[in-house]
Amino acid sequence: MNRNLGEFEIIKTYFSALALSAKGAFNLTDDAAVIAIPAGKCIVVTTDTIVQGTHFLSEDSPNNIAAKLLRESLSDLAAMGSIPAYYNLSIAVNSNTKSDWFEAFALGLLADQKKYNITLIGGDTVATSGPITLTITALGLVDKGKTIRRSGAKFDDDIWVSGSIGDAALGLKVATGKLNQISEANKNYLRSRYFKPNPRTLLGPKLVGHVNSAIDISDGLIADLNHICETSNLGAKVQITDIPLSNAAKDVLSIKPDYIDLILGGGDDFELLFTADKSFQKVKQKLTRALDLNLTKIGSIISGDSIQIFDQYGEIYPLPTFGYAHF
Amino acid sequence: MNRNLGEFEIIKTYFSALALSAKGAFNLTDDAAVIAIPAGKCIVVTTDTIVQGTHFLSEDSPNNIAAKLLRESLSDLAAMGSIPAYYNLSIAVNSNTKSDWFEAFALGLLADQKKYNITLIGGDTVATSGPITLTITALGLVDKGKTIRRSGAKFDDDIWVSGSIGDAALGLKVATGKLNQISEANKNYLRSRYFKPNPRTLLGPKLVGHVNSAIDISDGLIADLNHICETSNLGAKVQITDIPLSNAAKDVLSIKPDYIDLILGGGDDFELLFTADKSFQKVKQKLTRALDLNLTKIGSIISGDSIQIFDQYGEIYPLPTFGYAHF
Repeated sequence: MNRNLGEFEIIKTYFSALALSAKGAFNLTDDAAVIAIPAGKCIVVTTDTIVQGTHFLSEDSPNNIAAKLLRESLSDLAAMGSIPAYYNLSIAVNSNTKSDWFEAFALGLLADQKKYNITLIGGDTVATSGPITLTITALGLVDKGKTIRRSGAKFDDDIWVSGSIGDAALGLKVATGKLNQISEANKNYLRSRYFKPNPRTLLGPKLVGHVNSAIDISDGLIADLNHICETSNLGAKVQITDIPLSNAAKDVLSIKPDYIDLILGGGDDFELLFTADKSFQKVKQKLTRALDLNLTKIGSIISGDSIQIFDQYGEIYPLPTFGYAHF
Repeated sequence: MNRNLGEFEIIKTYFSALALSAKGAFNLTDDAAVIAIPAGKCIVVTTDTIVQGTHFLSEDSPNNIAAKLLRESLSDLAAMGSIPAYYNLSIAVNSNTKSDWFEAFALGLLADQKKYNITLIGGDTVATSGPITLTITALGLVDKGKTIRRSGAKFDDDIWVSGSIGDAALGLKVATGKLNQISEANKNYLRSRYFKPNPRTLLGPKLVGHVNSAIDISDGLIADLNHICETSNLGAKVQITDIPLSNAAKDVLSIKPDYIDLILGGGDDFELLFTADKSFQKVKQKLTRALDLNLTKIGSIISGDSIQIFDQYGEIYPLPTFGYAHF
C-alpha cells in the first residue's frame, strides 16, 4: 500500500506514537503543547529547515532525511551546552509523498528519539506544490546562566575540535559519485558521516564551565571558527597538520591533496569547535575517556580579526573562499 | 534597489532588529536562543507552516503574509489560555524573493511584534526551488496546571464563540473576485478579516479557570467544534440563527443564502470557540465590556458523538462536508 493521505490521518498514523512519552503533547490532538520547565533551568530553542533538492536529494532514504533533520538541531543544542528534550516538526509535502515515505520517515524519527532521548511534542503538516520542506524546532534544557556562547572566546584560548573534520564533505562527494578512487569501506564510512552525523549531545553539556566559547561545525571548520572570531572580536590561527582526520579522509588526501580545501571549508560535520584556556587539558583527558571521543587542539585565539592557517612548512595557507554561506 | 541576498545578509539586514528586545536571542548570532521561564509558568509551543500557492497567493502583500503567519500561531496560543511571548521563524525563499519582499515582510513582523508584545528569538533562512514556505514556532506562557484543553468539554456545557463567524471565508471569496455583489465597504471589511485576522490573545488567558474547553477556529466552525467533541467524547447541538454574523456577512447571506455553508464550514476566522457551564454568563458580561468583544452562545454540549445543527425552523440542517481537513 502506497497512497496519499490527509493531514489528520498522517498525524494519527505516523506521528502520534512519537509523542506518547510527552504528557503535554496531548497525543498531538490540541492546539499546542504544554511543557513544564524544571526549576533552575532555561530552555534553549533552535530551528532548522531542510529542503529537497537543496539540503537532501529526492532519492535519499526518508530514514536518513529524518536523521539529518533531527541531528542538525541536536548539534545546535549541544553547542550551547544544553541537553536535548523536545522537538516540533513541520512537514510540507507534495502529491508524490506517499504513505511509504511517511512510514520510513517516522521510523527514522523514532530511532533517533530513542538514541537521543527526545520526544515529538507538536508540529504542522501541509501541502506544497514544490519540494518537500521540513522544519524542526528543538528544545533543550540548560542550567540558568550556564549557556556556552559563540562570543565568549578569550585571547590565547586554545581552539579544540571533537572527532574528525571534513568527513561529511567527502561523504557528499562519495554519495554524488565524485569520489570513486577509495575503498568500499572508506566510501561507506564517509557516506555515513554525511547521512548520519553524530551530534555531540553528550559532550556539549559536559563542556559547560570548562570552555569559553563553542559552536557546532555546520557551515565548515573555517566558516564556523570565523563565527566565533567575529562574535568574540578576536582572530585565530590554525595549524593544518593538527586538524584531526579520519583514516578515510587521510586516504582521500593521499590521492587528492587539494581536497584539503574540502576539509577546511566543507560543512555538515556537526562536530563541536570550542575554545578554552590551558587548564582544559586536564578536563580533556577525562572527557576523552568518558565519552570515547577524540578532542584535538588545532590552534589558538589571537588578537586582530583574521584567521591564519598554517601549512606543514609553517607557511600561510590561503583561505578557501567557500563554506562561508550555504545560501 | 531590489536584489537577491545571502543568508547572513538577510538575517543582519532584516531580522536582527526584530530580536533586539530578547537578550537570550543574542542578536541572532548564536546557534540557538536561551529563554528563562518565570517560576510557576509552563511554556506553550505551537508550530504553523504556510506555503505560497496553498495558504497565500504570490500577489499577496508580504505585510499581510507576515500578519497571517504570526496571527495563526498567536491564535493557537490564545486557545490554550497562554500569553504569547516569543517566536522562531524559518523562511524558505526562492530566487524571485528579493530585498523589497524581505523589507516589507520584516516591517509586517515588526508591526505585529508591537501589537502583540512578542519578540523574534531565532530561526533559519534557506533556499528553495519551490514556493516560499514559512514556518513559525511560537512560545507562550501559562500558569502551571492552568492550560485550557480541547478535551475538557462537559455534558450540558454551553458552546460560546467570540466575535463573528465566517468573515474570513467570505473575505477569501472577495479577494479571489468571486463575491462582487456587495458594497466596497463590506468587501474591504471581509478582505481584512481574511488577510489580517484578530487572534483573541487577550481573551484566551482570561478564559482560564472559567471554561472547560477551548479551540481556535482555523479549520472552520463545525470542524473545530468537532475537534472539541471528538477529544471530549461528547456531541453538540448548534442553533444556526444564534451564530454571530457581521453586518457584512448578513448582507452576503441576503444575496446568497447558500453561503451559510461557508459560515459553518469555512476556516481562518481565528475566533475562539469554547465551552463552559452556566456560571460563565456572569464572567461573560465582564469580559465583553473589558475587551469590547462579543461573546455569543451558539449551542450546547450533548451526549453521543454527533453534531446536530438546527435551522430557523427547528429542522436538522445537513452538515456541510468541507472544512474537515485543509490538506
